[in-house]
Amino acid sequence: MPVPRSVAAHQAAVAELLTTGAGHPAGEHLPLLDALGRVLAVDLYAPLDLPPFANSQMDGFAVNSSDLPDGGAELRVADPVPAGAAPAPLERGSAAPIMTGAMIPEGADAVVPIEAAEPDSFPPAGQDDAMVALPATAPGTYIRQAGSDIPAGALALPAGTRLGPGQLGLLAALGLATVEVRRPLRVLLLTTGDEVVEPGRALAVGKIYDSNSTLLEASMRQAGLHVLRAGIADDDPRKLLAVLEEHAAQVDLIVTTGGVSKGAYEVVRQAMDGHAVEFVPVAMQPGGPQGIGRFHGTPFLGFPGNPVSCLVSFEMFLRPALGSVHGSPAARPVLRACLAEPLTSPAGKHQVRRGYLDGGGTVRLIGGPGSHLVHALATSNALVHIPAHVTELPEGAEVEVWML
Amino acid sequence: MPVPRSVAAHQAAVAELLTTGAGHPAGEHLPLLDALGRVLAVDLYAPLDLPPFANSQMDGFAVNSSDLPDGGAELRVADPVPAGAAPAPLERGSAAPIMTGAMIPEGADAVVPIEAAEPDSFPPAGQDDAMVALPATAPGTYIRQAGSDIPAGALALPAGTRLGPGQLGLLAALGLATVEVRRPLRVLLLTTGDEVVEPGRALAVGKIYDSNSTLLEASMRQAGLHVLRAGIADDDPRKLLAVLEEHAAQVDLIVTTGGVSKGAYEVVRQAMDGHAVEFVPVAMQPGGPQGIGRFHGTPFLGFPGNPVSCLVSFEMFLRPALGSVHGSPAARPVLRACLAEPLTSPAGKHQVRRGYLDGGGTVRLIGGPGSHLVHALATSNALVHIPAHVTELPEGAEVEVWML
Repeated sequence: MPVPRSVAAHQAAVAELLTTGAGHPAGEHLPLLDALGRVLAVDLYAPLDLPPFANSQMDGFAVNSSDLPDGGAELRVADPVPAGAAPAPLERGSAAPIMTGAMIPEGADAVVPIEAAEPDSFPPAGQDDAMVALPATAPGTYIRQAGSDIPAGALALPAGTRLGPGQLGLLAALGLATVEVRRPLRVLLLTTGDEVVEPGRALAVGKIYDSNSTLLEASMRQAGLHVLRAGIADDDPRKLLAVLEEHAAQVDLIVTTGGVSKGAYEVVRQAMDGHAVEFVPVAMQPGGPQGIGRFHGTPFLGFPGNPVSCLVSFEMFLRPALGSVHGSPAARPVLRACLAEPLTSPAGKHQVRRGYLDGGGTVRLIGGPGSHLVHALATSNALVHIPAHVTELPEGAEVEVWML
Repeated sequence: MPVPRSVAAHQAAVAELLTTGAGHPAGEHLPLLDALGRVLAVDLYAPLDLPPFANSQMDGFAVNSSDLPDGGAELRVADPVPAGAAPAPLERGSAAPIMTGAMIPEGADAVVPIEAAEPDSFPPAGQDDAMVALPATAPGTYIRQAGSDIPAGALALPAGTRLGPGQLGLLAALGLATVEVRRPLRVLLLTTGDEVVEPGRALAVGKIYDSNSTLLEASMRQAGLHVLRAGIADDDPRKLLAVLEEHAAQVDLIVTTGGVSKGAYEVVRQAMDGHAVEFVPVAMQPGGPQGIGRFHGTPFLGFPGNPVSCLVSFEMFLRPALGSVHGSPAARPVLRACLAEPLTSPAGKHQVRRGYLDGGGTVRLIGGPGSHLVHALATSNALVHIPAHVTELPEGAEVEVWML
């Protein structure tokens, strides 16, 4: 029996497997909103200044600061400058009412907020002899300079950036209507086992419904993968091989579930005999037995067959590797929480339990360690990590949790 | 000038606005994977036991524990029980090789793991006179009892549950191919301002590109809303009213951006004159001026016009209200982090800064407090909260951050 590999070592192996693939898939151009959650394919440089022009940070008066000596001065009120207008140059000795975001007129170099003016309101439209008393004001006051957020030509976002609302908002502000993003990785997902039946069909004695396919496809979709489902393979390795041969060349990654353990009917192990796939014990519970390698050159991961093991395998190995190698998804937020109850954990294994983290920072374990407890999983909101060297923890002990 | 409303008071007002709407929209039945991220419309009861039958937790031998007295016994090896098979009853005095997940045969009440057997491997297929020595074993050992995860008839998930991979995996395990989810809320999104131009078009002097629509539609899509975009309204309140009149009856919520402040051209304020919408200052920066109320009965929120103000308004008010009233989206993970630098904050205002939280728990502020800094927003990964009563914080001070 081989010495189990540490979680960190297997994480590195999975990242290495994805890194040494065919490189990033080619890019595709998408309208901004279709690119939500996708990854920028190229370094993106600002095609214009942001802000595009100097503009007012306040509702107030645009002035030439040299018209306002110490003690201030009374200035003639010029025509107002609304946002969106191309204003006339400011005449010396005058002050132009200006709205937040409106362009600073030529000849103006500062804004005095309306609250600092006397009177502290704008004269009615049409009055052409209004005057306003304004205090001394330093040049640049309340002006957002052109390019002060980002200047034209600067790197706006590097290739590999995940595009969320803020990033897409920046692209829109830069005037871009489309963006080049990496194509999603294509993954072939295949559940194995004689006992497994598609949901919605009748369930014969001794059979169970396939939850792995749904659980993993949902996880993979959330992580931005394009999933090709090849259905359920029974325990005949020749049939499994036939499915893999048919689809391997069309995908960037193959993921199977089940058939990787040490029992008598381990279909994935049998099918991979002679291929560059190894089956390694990882010092983790659940999700200990793992297959990893290549099938005709295509990266291959063999997850164990229980649903919780599948989810834990995905969260511990594939999801972080996708994030680090391909820029998406973002890592799970890592929190520290206090255990609501004591626990024990097997020596030498990194245990991953399911739990419910409440708003007060306390995490309650949901269900036992059993990897078949899919209802317990469904009522959890976090994974709870117990490091390999820890065998028991008291109530109130601090643990690392990952929010699902 | 009215006294500013606290952030908590406005959060409550927005939640109240959504609560007193037309109730939850009617449900729709979707295939499981199309329901990812949606919200369960009804209480869902388990149609079957999980596990559906007692099964083995280990690869080993199914036995009748009364055949194994203290000190154990040698038993005849019966036909093996693979996963997925309906096994023959176990004869007294025999032990059936059984695989993980396989059904416990009638007459068996415990499993002895293969590692505890002598010999510790299964006899080859076809050998019909094999014997195995097994230790004394308590009834129930290594058996996953039918219904031990959830019994048939029990509440599996309550109405309002957000359906992620774990929840969909449970529904699949229960044999369900479809699920009834709430219809997404429909929101009419309208950007206002004479200065605002659609990305991809030419930019005249004094104009800026509309980033609010993209930023907010992306945020709303992530939050599960169905967004109807009504384009950009200029500063003519009659045109804005015409667009709202046309669409208000088709949506569950109206969100506008811009035109809610105290300047001379506040189109949303002008258009809402005579409608049940109030414009309130909230003690928050950015995002202080907020419109809230109803337009012909449809809930209405008027966000301010700068992009960072829009995002902060969405994250502080609308997103939490959707989560608490409609069950989705999940709340942002709240973390405590240490400031990488000192900061100051205006007295009496809850300030929301943008920052980058590193893996070590330190948050660095990105850009200044200016609400136009969309590049700074795009390179941030967190919102940093400075409570209203705090005016300065030293480097290293602990702050609350929300992961974006």
